[in-house]
Amino acid sequence: MNGKTIEEMKVGDVAEFAKTVSESDIYQYAGVTGDFNPAHINEAYAANTFFKTRIAHGMLSAGFISNVLGNQLPGPGAVYIRQNLNFLAPVRIGDTIKAVVEVIDLDKDKNRVTLKTQCFNQDGTVVIGGEAALSPTKKR
Amino acid sequence: MNGKTIEEMKVGDVAEFAKTVSESDIYQYAGVTGDFNPAHINEAYAANTFFKTRIAHGMLSAGFISNVLGNQLPGPGAVYIRQNLNFLAPVRIGDTIKAVVEVIDLDKDKNRVTLKTQCFNQDGTVVIGGEAALSPTKKR
Amino acid sequence: MNGKTIEEMKVGDVAEFAKTVSESDIYQYAGVTGDFNPAHINEAYAANTFFKTRIAHGMLSAGFISNVLGNQLPGPGAVYIRQNLNFLAPVRIGDTIKAVVEVIDLDKDKNRVTLKTQCFNQDGTVVIGGEAALSPTKKR
Amino acid sequence: MNGKTIEEMKVGDVAEFAKTVSESDIYQYAGVTGDFNPAHINEAYAANTFFKTRIAHGMLSAGFISNVLGNQLPGPGAVYIRQNLNFLAPVRIGDTIKAVVEVIDLDKDKNRVTLKTQCFNQDGTVVIGGEAALSPTKKR
Repeated sequence: MNGKTIEEMKVGDVAEFAKTVSESDIYQYAGVTGDFNPAHINEAYAANTFFKTRIAHGMLSAGFISNVLGNQLPGPGAVYIRQNLNFLAPVRIGDTIKAVVEVIDLDKDKNRVTLKTQCFNQDGTVVIGGEAALSPTKKR
Repeated sequence: MNGKTIEEMKVGDVAEFAKTVSESDIYQYAGVTGDFNPAHINEAYAANTFFKTRIAHGMLSAGFISNVLGNQLPGPGAVYIRQNLNFLAPVRIGDTIKAVVEVIDLDKDKNRVTLKTQCFNQDGTVVIGGEAALSPTKKR
Repeated sequence: MNGKTIEEMKVGDVAEFAKTVSESDIYQYAGVTGDFNPAHINEAYAANTFFKTRIAHGMLSAGFISNVLGNQLPGPGAVYIRQNLNFLAPVRIGDTIKAVVEVIDLDKDKNRVTLKTQCFNQDGTVVIGGEAALSPTKKR
Repeated sequence: MNGKTIEEMKVGDVAEFAKTVSESDIYQYAGVTGDFNPAHINEAYAANTFFKTRIAHGMLSAGFISNVLGNQLPGPGAVYIRQNLNFLAPVRIGDTIKAVVEVIDLDKDKNRVTLKTQCFNQDGTVVIGGEAALSPTKKR
């Protein structure tokens, strides 16, 4: 059940996960994190904002990145060290968000992999940019 | 219902939110994000890991930071621009996590506030460190 | 699938529903209602309160009363008019709460039934007292 | 983290919370309380009722009142004593419900505050009326 070791990865490796973000995703996410910002859960309020409707929490889409890192690349056994997130565009109810991670650096001495981490919507717009660093599993 | 403008904040302002992280939080978070890494939802697997038990998704606690930023400081109307996260220690089921944000820089020309963002457990250990940048509401 | 008409009820009729209140019940209830009062979801805070631990939202147990009224007595088709609630004792995680409703008055002219509504814990302590009025279904 | 003492409140003080009620709110609320009245979770049944569609549990909106009382006015530390609820209009999926509480009486000898408690929909219709009594925190 363990993920890739640093020897099993190379620069350019990619992995992804995609999900259509539903209203219930946003509501459950609000319920877990306590984040009831009206931009996320109050349509009457949101109708008067720049985006004209409720938008998903940025951190919800960021969770899709963590999903790919933890389950695919490097996968189980890796320790999550650092994640930088740049929130570039809003996610609306019904948008399909694809998280894509790509290996951009491997430091075998420190056992550390750096990945470019992005989320795209169904139109190809980058909604989140950023970078992650993890320490992959050594078990083999 | 709007949050603070940049004029209403000063360096040193703080806000916080705390929650005991339950098993159901972790499971619902897994259900929303699809992150079923066995370290989070498989006790038999987790018993053989370094942490000896299931741990919460790092991004779940990061959501508490987003909660404080979006609801209190700067609060509703702010646009989330950037979040850096350093995952420093694990969160176990039953840990009480407090997210604390503190204003460290205000750029009135760009209407941008920078905050130190941290999560602590009940023992005072920093489990997440990092920094956020937001563009506060201008509406008044 | 319809409930009882006023002709099908008599003073003294009773119905009940019971459930052990879990941590996940409290957390999901908080998530739906946005009620993150630390008394409910922060064990570190709650340990220093009079009750020494997290307690359930009073309104969560009140929902068990509504359950009995809406599904059993009078049951589907009834219109909920009024509910008075007296919160008498705390509900802790793991307590088994039984909601009991009893018909105390029938006004056939107004088609209105009044019921005594109570919640008991596993020790027989009344945790919620009160009274409800409903207009039962007329369909037959 | 404590709420207001009775000395810190005055007649006329108000606080509010608003949320768009989603289908997932109703379903999760049903799951927690066991209230599977077909009026709430059976669209085929509900289409033949007076309201023509599924409606939210009255007690779900009542939870928004409890949210405002417990988190804002009086806020954490208050003991909930009594709540009267008058269900005046239905709440449909997608309605945005605003709970508003207003201090109408302060009894400093008994340390008891009485508040008018109402829920409005997005059109300003009162869907729930009523009154609450609480004993605010004394800690300072």
